[in-house]
Amino acid sequence: MNSDTLIVPAPPAEPYARIVPLGGCGEIGRNMTVVETADDLVVVDCGLMFPDDEMYGVDIVINDFTYVRERAHKLRAVLVTHGHEDHIGGLPYFMREFPATPVAGTPLSIALIKAKSREQKLGDVEYVPVQPGDRVAYGSIEAEFVHINHSVAGACALALRTPVGTIFHTGDFKFDQTPIDGKPADFARIARIGDEGVLCMLSDSTNAERPGHTLSERIVGEAFTSIFSHAKGRIVVASFASNVPRIQQAVDHAVRFNRKVAFLGRSMQNVVHFSSELGYLRIPPETVVKIEEIDNYAAERVVVMTTGSQGEPMSGLARMSVRDHKKFRIVPGDTVVISATPIPGNEKSVYKTINNLCKLGATVIHGTDGRSHVSGHGSQEELLLMLNLVRPEFFVPVHGEYRMLAQHGRLAVQTGVDPGNVFVLENGDVLEFTREYGDKIGKTYAGHVFVDRSGVGNVGEAVLRDRKALSNDGIMMVVIAIDAEEARVIAGPDLVSKGVFYLPENDGVLDELRAELVATMEEVSVEGMRDVNTVKEHIRNGLARAIHNRTKRRPVVIPVVMEV
Amino acid sequence: MNSDTLIVPAPPAEPYARIVPLGGCGEIGRNMTVVETADDLVVVDCGLMFPDDEMYGVDIVINDFTYVRERAHKLRAVLVTHGHEDHIGGLPYFMREFPATPVAGTPLSIALIKAKSREQKLGDVEYVPVQPGDRVAYGSIEAEFVHINHSVAGACALALRTPVGTIFHTGDFKFDQTPIDGKPADFARIARIGDEGVLCMLSDSTNAERPGHTLSERIVGEAFTSIFSHAKGRIVVASFASNVPRIQQAVDHAVRFNRKVAFLGRSMQNVVHFSSELGYLRIPPETVVKIEEIDNYAAERVVVMTTGSQGEPMSGLARMSVRDHKKFRIVPGDTVVISATPIPGNEKSVYKTINNLCKLGATVIHGTDGRSHVSGHGSQEELLLMLNLVRPEFFVPVHGEYRMLAQHGRLAVQTGVDPGNVFVLENGDVLEFTREYGDKIGKTYAGHVFVDRSGVGNVGEAVLRDRKALSNDGIMMVVIAIDAEEARVIAGPDLVSKGVFYLPENDGVLDELRAELVATMEEVSVEGMRDVNTVKEHIRNGLARAIHNRTKRRPVVIPVVMEV
Repeated sequence: MNSDTLIVPAPPAEPYARIVPLGGCGEIGRNMTVVETADDLVVVDCGLMFPDDEMYGVDIVINDFTYVRERAHKLRAVLVTHGHEDHIGGLPYFMREFPATPVAGTPLSIALIKAKSREQKLGDVEYVPVQPGDRVAYGSIEAEFVHINHSVAGACALALRTPVGTIFHTGDFKFDQTPIDGKPADFARIARIGDEGVLCMLSDSTNAERPGHTLSERIVGEAFTSIFSHAKGRIVVASFASNVPRIQQAVDHAVRFNRKVAFLGRSMQNVVHFSSELGYLRIPPETVVKIEEIDNYAAERVVVMTTGSQGEPMSGLARMSVRDHKKFRIVPGDTVVISATPIPGNEKSVYKTINNLCKLGATVIHGTDGRSHVSGHGSQEELLLMLNLVRPEFFVPVHGEYRMLAQHGRLAVQTGVDPGNVFVLENGDVLEFTREYGDKIGKTYAGHVFVDRSGVGNVGEAVLRDRKALSNDGIMMVVIAIDAEEARVIAGPDLVSKGVFYLPENDGVLDELRAELVATMEEVSVEGMRDVNTVKEHIRNGLARAIHNRTKRRPVVIPVVMEV
Repeated sequence: MNSDTLIVPAPPAEPYARIVPLGGCGEIGRNMTVVETADDLVVVDCGLMFPDDEMYGVDIVINDFTYVRERAHKLRAVLVTHGHEDHIGGLPYFMREFPATPVAGTPLSIALIKAKSREQKLGDVEYVPVQPGDRVAYGSIEAEFVHINHSVAGACALALRTPVGTIFHTGDFKFDQTPIDGKPADFARIARIGDEGVLCMLSDSTNAERPGHTLSERIVGEAFTSIFSHAKGRIVVASFASNVPRIQQAVDHAVRFNRKVAFLGRSMQNVVHFSSELGYLRIPPETVVKIEEIDNYAAERVVVMTTGSQGEPMSGLARMSVRDHKKFRIVPGDTVVISATPIPGNEKSVYKTINNLCKLGATVIHGTDGRSHVSGHGSQEELLLMLNLVRPEFFVPVHGEYRMLAQHGRLAVQTGVDPGNVFVLENGDVLEFTREYGDKIGKTYAGHVFVDRSGVGNVGEAVLRDRKALSNDGIMMVVIAIDAEEARVIAGPDLVSKGVFYLPENDGVLDELRAELVATMEEVSVEGMRDVNTVKEHIRNGLARAIHNRTKRRPVVIPVVMEV
């Protein structure tokens, strides 16, 4: 990131509010938005993003907290809209740096954060459990949690009242008229907030390119009914662990079709435990059996719920698909329902899992055609409805790639938002509102922070570039010992290659390259031999040329010159 | 591949036919099937597959020709169903090994093969141009080319008559009742062949999981009509170069809406040239302009046809999207129609291209929702119709991942094929038919042959494993010079790392690791110091431990020990 362009002007003297998305604008994942007034600052969500193929060896990607760090004295709270990884996954890293910050959210969100924090061995965090309809005040910012529908229980939008007006953040949402928990989004409250006047709305853009209306969760129930009435053997349902409504539907169908349910895997068991305790999930105790006990029941009396809907290599479903699961083996006659769609980039691993399950004789039901999955994000009609209910003066599409944000911006204009008041932002853009104006006034740090097993933020771009080069053509090292006094080679050159040649078939090639290098070295002048960098340059060029002539490859060549 | 299991029994004394898929069963791409009798052998198609993410540095994947090689004396011809890469892309490699083999196909298929062969500098090949309805005989095998519909012109199915019965290979197909060229598949001929009796059918399984009927190419025309009547600026249409019907539709709409057409890129221009010459494409000469001339026309009078619908980095569309195209710059007001769907694995690059185009101000129309693309492969109703027309005794689903083949097998059973006569094969399975039986009798080599810039087949699995390890955690080399006589270190250890640390932030770490290694080396016994392998083992373990303690990473550690 070019820091020359990163300027955040001093705040105005008059009352103001700033909105700064630090992630989730122009990308799917690591959603995080700062809302700030003269004296106070709150953070809405703090998610993670999974790395793409180019991020070699990176485990997760989180946000750059610099903007918050520079204003840490104003930081009052983290407000969590819901408990999905792309909204809470960065929190353990955030809390490590800002441990005194209270975290407010609905009970399931907090339970999911607690489960993560335990893994990360965080200390005590001050949690503020709220219910939809509750208001919490942090200095000049008051936050109201508003019930909406999404593919996790306890999901909320936020109305943030500031001295210059209300900022409405939808979180992730859909409008489900027939949700499983019987609670459609709080239309009345949203409409009232709109009536009172909303300065700026930030809204979920994930499905902004999809015309029409996202199907109700109830539709999945109809698909389940059909699947459960046809399946003659065991049924395995794979979904995200956090998809509590989906788990409820599987359980309801198990009860209805007289099957027992076993929950497989720690994250699935955790969520079932929390959600039942908190009343989000209703499971008759006699329905649940341990996975070890399912063999005591006839095949047609068993349902297994597991994770792995994204083909994640270590998940329950992926392990089943390659007979690597200790407690469950797929047998012919099993029906596997993949109750999710692949996140872009995961298609290949999901299809690999499905192919393997088919080879073991399972019937696999997947994709949206069979309606065994519906999205948790509203399509165009719902986004338009939200715009018409809230009627904001300014509009910021969030949570999506650029194409989705741009399309959502066009939808806003269709509902009457002034095109000049629609801001399709990039991460780090600073939007400032006073009673007079609203405008983009600066830009802050919002680059990817890479986390790998070794800690936070120490896999730089240069290392990634190296790893990429290594993965393309391998590496070739040349080691040579030189007597600088006498300007002659006293040992080597020795060649070591990794990932360049398939050696059993290229036995002689290293010897040939070595001979060429010896010839190259003989051409180096006395002065050259005394300068390590000159020697290195000769080796690097000579070897790169020799390898390229033979193989057209361009491995990384590293000369190691030892002066003895 | 475990060659222990690779056994192909000697052929029977009585007349027989063998079917051996060498690619395309259990995967998308590199389609190739051997059909063999006692005295003769023909190859149906010879395609390529693009590498997946795990195949580091591999450019393309082709088939193992061992089975053909061992029977080269019987090889009579290559029969090409159509000119897509996954059916002809391996041919240049095949023809290099078997240069005297005639290649039979329709004129456009041959033109596309010729274009490829020119790039690969192949010598003279004997081409046998055929028209749908033509029959060609190669010893005991007679091949009839049968017109079907697909997303390239000149696509055919093949009826292969052998001494033991007819083998019907559908190629890739759909049944389009309203195709652009006015020629629906030759139902009458297919039905007649079915009436005469078909021993075994091999059929395209790409869309076997899709219920219903694939939409007609005509539907794309309706979408184009809507797009062309709304677009106020230039229109850019991206499709596969070989999708001649799609090009025809874009041209027809350009004519109708009074726009000029420019064709961008060599492969697009090649196909337009061949197809026009061969009569597959009808373009009024005054409609075509050079890309350099389009600025002479008003924006609303211009259409540009380009490749790049898969987000390929060097394609016309990808270059436009990052302002890297010399001859064409996207400006606000341009409409870009991506008239194709992403092949699984390409989603991320396609969406990246779309996002970039949106950022430049283009309106991008993509996906199947807008109906600007339809598949070239038949869905379930078409596969069922083909089965009912041909009524084969045996059935082999081909061209698809395992899940698609398995589903296609179930469809065959629904039309009355004996479940015992449905063979869901793996590549290399040998199916044998006599007048008495049909059965899987053996297995031959059918592994992936990797082609990279350096030639064919010399990127082994071991090299790929190395490249993968390198890409995860990088590499660390230790160079040390030892005086074996005196059993002491005389230079080093020197440490070189690549892709492990971000060095500007880890300045001291190499020094620390070096100090630890020095300590490790001091513990090595005199005997140990005299044995290079012992020294290497100490270095490898000591360094791996030290790095893992610090960073939790496990780079590849390569000790280089020089005896001076």
